[in-house]
Amino acid sequence: MESLFLLVLGNTEISTIPGISVAGATPELTKITPVADAEYLFHEKPLTIDAIPVTPEGHPTPAIITKAAKELADFPIIVIRGGTYLAPLVPHVHISDVVGRDFRKEIALPEFGEIIKRAKLFGEELNKLPIKELVIGESTPGGTTTAQAVLWALGYEARTSSASPNNPQELKERVIMEGFNRAGIEKGQLSEKPLEALRQFGDPMIATVVGLSLGFRKDIVLAGGTQMLAVSAILKALGEDMKRFMIATTRWVVNDRSATFVETAREIGIITYSADLDFSNSKFKGLRDYERGYVKEGVGAGGATWLAVKSGFSPEDVSEKVEELYERLMRMKSLT
Amino acid sequence: MESLFLLVLGNTEISTIPGISVAGATPELTKITPVADAEYLFHEKPLTIDAIPVTPEGHPTPAIITKAAKELADFPIIVIRGGTYLAPLVPHVHISDVVGRDFRKEIALPEFGEIIKRAKLFGEELNKLPIKELVIGESTPGGTTTAQAVLWALGYEARTSSASPNNPQELKERVIMEGFNRAGIEKGQLSEKPLEALRQFGDPMIATVVGLSLGFRKDIVLAGGTQMLAVSAILKALGEDMKRFMIATTRWVVNDRSATFVETAREIGIITYSADLDFSNSKFKGLRDYERGYVKEGVGAGGATWLAVKSGFSPEDVSEKVEELYERLMRMKSLT
Repeated sequence: MESLFLLVLGNTEISTIPGISVAGATPELTKITPVADAEYLFHEKPLTIDAIPVTPEGHPTPAIITKAAKELADFPIIVIRGGTYLAPLVPHVHISDVVGRDFRKEIALPEFGEIIKRAKLFGEELNKLPIKELVIGESTPGGTTTAQAVLWALGYEARTSSASPNNPQELKERVIMEGFNRAGIEKGQLSEKPLEALRQFGDPMIATVVGLSLGFRKDIVLAGGTQMLAVSAILKALGEDMKRFMIATTRWVVNDRSATFVETAREIGIITYSADLDFSNSKFKGLRDYERGYVKEGVGAGGATWLAVKSGFSPEDVSEKVEELYERLMRMKSLT
Repeated sequence: MESLFLLVLGNTEISTIPGISVAGATPELTKITPVADAEYLFHEKPLTIDAIPVTPEGHPTPAIITKAAKELADFPIIVIRGGTYLAPLVPHVHISDVVGRDFRKEIALPEFGEIIKRAKLFGEELNKLPIKELVIGESTPGGTTTAQAVLWALGYEARTSSASPNNPQELKERVIMEGFNRAGIEKGQLSEKPLEALRQFGDPMIATVVGLSLGFRKDIVLAGGTQMLAVSAILKALGEDMKRFMIATTRWVVNDRSATFVETAREIGIITYSADLDFSNSKFKGLRDYERGYVKEGVGAGGATWLAVKSGFSPEDVSEKVEELYERLMRMKSLT
């Protein structure tokens, strides 16, 4: 396998604002989501909490797609702790243990420089390996709000997506405007100061992926939805040539009419890949709900599917494997 | 480059027994040595302490050899925190933050199972990369004593080397016998229980390298001196075929008459490589002292030289680069 999959974990206090994130059963539990996702990729279920990674409504973490693709294509995965509340209980590269602060009240990421520097150093080492491509996924609850704030600061009229079918755009925009007021800036005012946008409104996942991308000089697939638009926009503003970058996401993000994925990607000038996953024939409501706008993307689900497809599997193969993994989770649940 | 160099960091309380270790200016400072070594590989000097990595007598850390080889051959390095007091301030894979306990008083490494499991998981991911070989070095003050205790428990009449020209064998043996008394075992009694030997007397570096070696199934170069004999002995007792393993060390370890490197390697049945480094013509006494038995090995110096030689450089090239790096350190020192 000439590709290496990196999963970057991040937290931001923004995820604990009620209504912002559904990537956890409660706002408080979103703090655990990144480590639980990483642990689930390598084990039958998360280790940090004794629960299956499925919401009370039956919606599984998008890590189930990444895990399905991994089990089919057997690509290598390295977990990276960009900055989280907890350390995952699986081997991981430590970049930092800082979380993004609530940007309504204070600067989000004073440590952006150190995080970028360390991630870049690690990217430089990976660049010496005989691999052709990095595929970088993420798990960052609340991350679509920090991403949208960064995009607005850089001057993009973007709306990011959401793991909920009811994208809380009104709430997100109110939160972002509070942040802009606190920082004393207007939309587009930081278009030539991308690192200041990151410092004011970003999260450690964005900083880590930017750093990795500066260190690794070959092809990079940014595996995520609208959050990776913020990463791309910063890289472009830093002068990186967008030709070696691609965003790989899912159909569900591309088709999300509440967000501007396709338009903003075009504006940035980055090509995109959309994994053609379809769960409408699943026998499980929790999976069929992906077709109704639940979850959509995360943990590099689209990029992992891209790797499976490059290895000769079809999106249907991935969907079937997801079905199997979900069944396994349900059996575990019934045992508890 | 089809080889990947891993530097595994470990600490054991054993290093703080006065007289056991010279890998630090004082017994207490040996706690910092592993992270300082890792930081020096990537920066002009360590970050955790504001000092150059040279003893008061002028002897540089063996990391200077690894750094020299790295600057010549440009191989990728990933730092792994097997178990240390501090986290290094460079990107590193987190396996654990436990240190080996003083085995005279208690079981050294109750966490050996979890450490092996995590390291194995990481080794399995590395195994999927298109590389042919891992070269695994270590920095573990006090590690020759834990290694000798493990070797004795497994039934080898081994004497490990030392970073001092006056190998404190008498002290080491007294410490080991105290440990054997505490555990209620005799030499050779754990020959068929290698993991119990590791648990009773080992350190997190040994556990981590064992785990990595179980997960990565291609060629492995154990880059170290007599400490890697303990790793090899455990792997052999666990049923691993020694044919895919090699120990790469330096001439200074091979020629150490106070230790049994060659004899014990032969007994285990592992082949060895000896880097033909010669510092006798250095203009610096601190480097010429390597020829008088100071330092000898560490931070994978022999294995890093092996990689440089495979890339077409000579041991003389490495020595010249070491001279240059030492000069740089001395200039920094004179500025403070």
